[in-house]
Amino acid sequence: MSLGAAKSKIKPALPSGFRDFSPVQVRRRREVFAKLSALFERFGYEPLETPAVELLSVLLGKYGEEGDKLLFRILNSGDFLAEVPEEARKQARTLLPYITEKALRYDLTVPMARWVAQHAGELVFPFKRYQIQPVWRADRPQRGRFREFYQCDVDIVGAEGILPLLEMIVIAREGLQTLGIKGAVLHLNHRFLLEEAARQASWRNSFAAFCSHIDKADKIGWEAVRNLFQAQQVILPPWLHPEENFSERVQKELLRLEIPEEEIEALRSEIEKPDEVLAVRWDSTLARGLEYYTGYVYEVRLPGSGIGSIAAGGAYGNLIADFGGPDLPAMGLSFGIERILTLLPESEERSPQAVLVAWIDASPTYIQKVVETLHAQGVAAFAYPSPRKLGKQLEYAQRRGLRWVAVVGKQEELHHQVQLKDLIQHTQQTYALSEVAAAFTR
Amino acid sequence: MSLGAAKSKIKPALPSGFRDFSPVQVRRRREVFAKLSALFERFGYEPLETPAVELLSVLLGKYGEEGDKLLFRILNSGDFLAEVPEEARKQARTLLPYITEKALRYDLTVPMARWVAQHAGELVFPFKRYQIQPVWRADRPQRGRFREFYQCDVDIVGAEGILPLLEMIVIAREGLQTLGIKGAVLHLNHRFLLEEAARQASWRNSFAAFCSHIDKADKIGWEAVRNLFQAQQVILPPWLHPEENFSERVQKELLRLEIPEEEIEALRSEIEKPDEVLAVRWDSTLARGLEYYTGYVYEVRLPGSGIGSIAAGGAYGNLIADFGGPDLPAMGLSFGIERILTLLPESEERSPQAVLVAWIDASPTYIQKVVETLHAQGVAAFAYPSPRKLGKQLEYAQRRGLRWVAVVGKQEELHHQVQLKDLIQHTQQTYALSEVAAAFTR
Repeated sequence: MSLGAAKSKIKPALPSGFRDFSPVQVRRRREVFAKLSALFERFGYEPLETPAVELLSVLLGKYGEEGDKLLFRILNSGDFLAEVPEEARKQARTLLPYITEKALRYDLTVPMARWVAQHAGELVFPFKRYQIQPVWRADRPQRGRFREFYQCDVDIVGAEGILPLLEMIVIAREGLQTLGIKGAVLHLNHRFLLEEAARQASWRNSFAAFCSHIDKADKIGWEAVRNLFQAQQVILPPWLHPEENFSERVQKELLRLEIPEEEIEALRSEIEKPDEVLAVRWDSTLARGLEYYTGYVYEVRLPGSGIGSIAAGGAYGNLIADFGGPDLPAMGLSFGIERILTLLPESEERSPQAVLVAWIDASPTYIQKVVETLHAQGVAAFAYPSPRKLGKQLEYAQRRGLRWVAVVGKQEELHHQVQLKDLIQHTQQTYALSEVAAAFTR
Repeated sequence: MSLGAAKSKIKPALPSGFRDFSPVQVRRRREVFAKLSALFERFGYEPLETPAVELLSVLLGKYGEEGDKLLFRILNSGDFLAEVPEEARKQARTLLPYITEKALRYDLTVPMARWVAQHAGELVFPFKRYQIQPVWRADRPQRGRFREFYQCDVDIVGAEGILPLLEMIVIAREGLQTLGIKGAVLHLNHRFLLEEAARQASWRNSFAAFCSHIDKADKIGWEAVRNLFQAQQVILPPWLHPEENFSERVQKELLRLEIPEEEIEALRSEIEKPDEVLAVRWDSTLARGLEYYTGYVYEVRLPGSGIGSIAAGGAYGNLIADFGGPDLPAMGLSFGIERILTLLPESEERSPQAVLVAWIDASPTYIQKVVETLHAQGVAAFAYPSPRKLGKQLEYAQRRGLRWVAVVGKQEELHHQVQLKDLIQHTQQTYALSEVAAAFTR
């Protein structure tokens, strides 16, 4: 790196919507990611990481028209205008395909599907993977919404039905539990029920339009949604109501849709089970907008938290076949990890304790020897980097939250000793260098 | 995510120079990163993370002309051509400033300097940070060179001199040791010596040009470098030679350049100390190209490995002041983590052991209960997601490297039991569900 001509001061700033994570924040995030990773591993999920950059041919058309616009596109390198016809340079829309062929990852599902399609031959199905990585969206930044944020996904490819669903519920439950969150509710539905409702209501428009109406309940409330349909002379079936939960008539509809009796029984037992971390309720009005779901859909909400869903997912098909891979059913759960992080208390975890070796007037060689000897005794330690007044060095230790300072001057060097100060007990004691570790094992 | 119109098959591919990391690779990389992080923390370094995307105003001019060209630029969102004058659309060079204002991170040093400048008021100096994150460079991809790769940096800001240098050497040594690498050599030099050599040789061109000549030694050998200078009637001082190591005359030059006696003594003791992991030798011809170094520079090589340096760094100033922050000396070490990863053996670490609950013909509710009961007993477990032939499920367990399978059929459900198979010992035994954990604690 050369500073070259950059002699004038540069304003130190970040593009809007992007964040740094300070040491305290990194520790807290790592702790949460590690807890969830360990949970996923216990359920047999394996970690996958894909690059930040994907080909546009892989990404485009996967997230709807709006999503395509939100991709952060990467400008081709070199003389990117060389081959572009005059005509195409007139508008952004026509120029775009000539000057970009890559973009930043928009979610973790499409890259996973691409990877599974590429490696289907070597994988053991059902293939279970988890992935915790940042994604990028050129959304308008606002409070709590960022252009770079982490997603945290588990997916099982090559499985469908009740057991993967039960597993997703337990993962959500154990995930919240390990993070200390209580009182959440998982809303559960099956896309078949929504299709059936549209049929019973003699809906003539697209199913996507039906779902997009239903999806408004979150914002405008269910009564307003009903009225919206009524204004179009569409009468929704009476069992389609968020308060129905898993009523007899909802169960009857499911049976009619050929959901096996045994499966309905498992659902009923899950829904009736009281649980202080994560209760399950049936919600026939849960649509989860995304067109690509084909079976169960679910969304975890935390009543009274003022934030939207904290985890969500569903069963889907086709995604891997779209990339030329095998045609396998899949099911996934995505933790809204950035939202969840805002709910958690500040991490208690400080930087690990270490002994500060205060350099008074010993030789640098002896200071170094003290550090290495402590390390050899299994004690973390590092030296203050220059010989300054002891007061300054003690203040540094205090501000860094360090408890122990090993003061090392000419006297200590002469006698192969250190003077160990305990900043909490306000005591100090002289130790032979070879025996300092004893101070910490008492 | 909607699949929308994408009905035709899409070729699953990555842009060239980018990599996926499979579960085995992720585990291995995480293990290495965790070991190095723990090491850095023991020395009082704190983790920092900065976003993938930075403003061009922050990045440009920091990496030389060549570096500026290697930035992956992000196209502005929306109608990026709207405000661009006709004239500017003719060439890539003139269009560029209008259509991009952001780029992907190119290294970890500049973002750190930007961050320190922004937060100087809250930090305790000397500030010690480490950072392990990917960077992106639009280099021509080739064997072993990628466009997305991780860097792994430690830097201490607000310190200079011998003790930070000794710390960097110990960190390099303990880092290699924890990764199981031996026989490395740290080449050490001080920029003052190179400046002095240029003076003694009456070099009339720029100091950067002098260093860039010297730097060629790596490729063409030292004798060829000498000849190169001689062809320009420049005679290098005799002590400027890679084989001089820390000779009397090199030490005399350092003393003349006002390096304190005590510091030279510490260097001598470090250089004379035999060490099977990392030996230190003085190399007055080490230039480390980068203009911004101001004091010690160092580079760790692994003789016979066929790869270049595996860690490197030096003392530098100004970087934080360039962003309007305080004018502080700094020193850093960067592990060539991607190169190091190629040297390490495949990780032995497999996915953690878990019991596969084989689903024969029990109810899904009982299968689920088995999983939850095992978890409650502290045993990792997950169910095969559908009721298939036992042989298929055992094969799955074997291919996933799982040792234990809990077979659960109607009989087991009736008696609240599981039949536990040990795929290694080829034994099986029936347990009451509440007592399965006992099988693993014997």
